[in-house]
Amino acid sequence: MSEVLVIGSLAYDSVKTPAGSAKKSLGGSANYFSVAASLFSPVRVVGVVGTDYAKEDKEILIRRKIDLQGLQVVEGQTFHWEGTYENDLNEAVTLKTELNVFAHFNPEIPVSYTQSSHIFLANIDPTLQLKVLSQISNPVFVGMDSMNFWINSKQSDLLEVIKKVDILFMNETEVKMLTQENNTITAIEKISKMGPRYVVIKRGEYGVTMYSPEKGYFQSPALPVSNVVDPTGAGDSFAGGFFGYLVKNVQGQPSWSDLKRAVLAGTVMSSQTIQDFSLKALLDLSPAQFERLNQDLIRMTTLEG
Amino acid sequence: MSEVLVIGSLAYDSVKTPAGSAKKSLGGSANYFSVAASLFSPVRVVGVVGTDYAKEDKEILIRRKIDLQGLQVVEGQTFHWEGTYENDLNEAVTLKTELNVFAHFNPEIPVSYTQSSHIFLANIDPTLQLKVLSQISNPVFVGMDSMNFWINSKQSDLLEVIKKVDILFMNETEVKMLTQENNTITAIEKISKMGPRYVVIKRGEYGVTMYSPEKGYFQSPALPVSNVVDPTGAGDSFAGGFFGYLVKNVQGQPSWSDLKRAVLAGTVMSSQTIQDFSLKALLDLSPAQFERLNQDLIRMTTLEG
Repeated sequence: MSEVLVIGSLAYDSVKTPAGSAKKSLGGSANYFSVAASLFSPVRVVGVVGTDYAKEDKEILIRRKIDLQGLQVVEGQTFHWEGTYENDLNEAVTLKTELNVFAHFNPEIPVSYTQSSHIFLANIDPTLQLKVLSQISNPVFVGMDSMNFWINSKQSDLLEVIKKVDILFMNETEVKMLTQENNTITAIEKISKMGPRYVVIKRGEYGVTMYSPEKGYFQSPALPVSNVVDPTGAGDSFAGGFFGYLVKNVQGQPSWSDLKRAVLAGTVMSSQTIQDFSLKALLDLSPAQFERLNQDLIRMTTLEG
Repeated sequence: MSEVLVIGSLAYDSVKTPAGSAKKSLGGSANYFSVAASLFSPVRVVGVVGTDYAKEDKEILIRRKIDLQGLQVVEGQTFHWEGTYENDLNEAVTLKTELNVFAHFNPEIPVSYTQSSHIFLANIDPTLQLKVLSQISNPVFVGMDSMNFWINSKQSDLLEVIKKVDILFMNETEVKMLTQENNTITAIEKISKMGPRYVVIKRGEYGVTMYSPEKGYFQSPALPVSNVVDPTGAGDSFAGGFFGYLVKNVQGQPSWSDLKRAVLAGTVMSSQTIQDFSLKALLDLSPAQFERLNQDLIRMTTLEG
C-alpha cells in the first residue's frame, strides 16, 4: 500500500488579484496539495488549525478520504495569509502573515503515519520539515518546497533538508536566490549538486523544467489559460498532482519517464487551481476532465499530428 | 526549386550585455535570418548597405551561397543600432537607431526573385514589407516579424501586412501591445483573428508557443543555455531556421507537423546565436551539430526514456 504524507499549512487566505479578491477563503499548502493528490491516491495530512477552522472546510478533506489523524486542532486562530498579485501574476506580494496557531506548531506524527511511502514537505520552517522527516522510518520518495523567507532566515537548516530529499520543487526566483546565480540553468545545476536527485523548477505560465545530472532536462509547457483568476496554490497543486500520480501509478523508485508523466499530472492540477479563487476550481475537477486535459497537454508537445 | 527570400536590415550593432560588449559588429535581421536559413536552403536577400559595409562581411554571405542580387549598395553609412540588455536578457533597450542609408531605402525586387516560393518580411517599416510582397507573383508561404516601434507608429499598415501573411512571428510584449491584452493566450487568439493562419510567439528562454485556430497549440521549450552572451538576433535566427527547415524538407503547403519541426529547427538556431556576440556562434554551427542539438531538444519533451 502506498500513500503520500504532506506536512504544510491549512490556512485562510485573503487575496487580491487583477481579477478580483477573496477574503479569508480556504487555502494553505497542505490543503492545495492534498486536494490535488487525492484525485489519484490516499493522502495523510500533518498540520494544525485553530478552533475557528470551519467544520465544512474540514469536511472537504474528509469527503476526499484524506486521512486527518495528523491534524491538530489548537485553541486560537488558524494561520492567515494576506497577499496580492499585480500585473505579474507569477509573483505574489505578501501583505500580512499571521502565524497564529502555527507559531508554536510542533508536528507529531501519528504512529500510523510512520511507515508512509511518499512524503511531501511543503513550504514551512525547515526545522519542522527536518523534524517530520526524522520520524518516518524508510520513505520511498521524498519531495520538498520552500520559499524566499526560509532561504533568507534559515538557510543552514534549509540546506540540511535539501540534502535529504529525492526531489526539490522551487520557482525561478527561489532557485536564483538560493544559489546567487542570475541564469536559471546555472542555478539548477548548482542546486542539483547540493543533494537532491531531481530538481523541478516551476515557471508559472511557462511550464516546468525538471533536471537530473544523469538524465538531463525535461521540459513541460503549461496548459494555456486565458482566465487566470488567482495563482495562489498553483505550486502546491502541482506537487499534489505530481505525488498523487506517482503513488497511484508507480511501485518503488520512479523512473525518469514516470517522473515526466508526474510533471504533466502536476501541470494539469495547477492549471485548474488558477482559474478560480481558493480551492474552488481544483475541487471541481473530475478524473475524466483530468484525463482530457492531460491528453491536451501531451498533444501540445507531440511532433506528430 | 524552393528558396526563401528575406527582406530586412544588414547592420552594424553596438551592444552591451551583462557578459560584455561589442562595437559596430555585424548584425541586422537579414544577416541573422539568411545565415541561419542557409544551413538548410537557398536564400535571397533584399536589403541595403552603405559604402562602409566591409568586403569581408559581404563575403560571409557569399560563402554560404546566399543570393545577393537584391542587395543595394548606396553612398553613405550602413544602418547602425545601439542597444543594451540589463538583467532581463529577454528585452533589449534601444539607445540609438541611426537609419543612415536605410532611411531612403526603396526595395526593388530583381526579376529573378519574383517567383520566390517562401518569403520572410523581417522587422522593417510595414510599408516596405507591403511593397516587397506586392512584387512577388505567387508565394507558397509568407512570414513576418515586427516590433513595438511599428506597432506604435504605423499600425494601420502593419495590420495590412498581418492580413496577408501565412505566419506571424512576435514576442510576448509585442503581441500584448498590439492587441492591448494582458494575457498572452488571449492576445494570441485575438491576433490570430486578424488574418494569419499561424501565430508564433517567441518567449526567449521559455521557448515558443505556436497557435492555429484549427490545430490549437504547440509548445516547444528553449534549449537550456547557461552562458547567454548576447540575445540580439535570436528572433531572426529562429525565423531563419524555421524557414530554412521548411524550404529544405517540405513541398508546397506545410502540415501542422511540418511547422512543429520547423519550430524546433528555429529554436536550435536561436540557442546558438545567443552564445556569442554578433553572428559568431551562429556561423560556427555545423549541420552535424545542428542535428545533435535538434535531437537533444526532441528528447527534452519526449515522455519515453
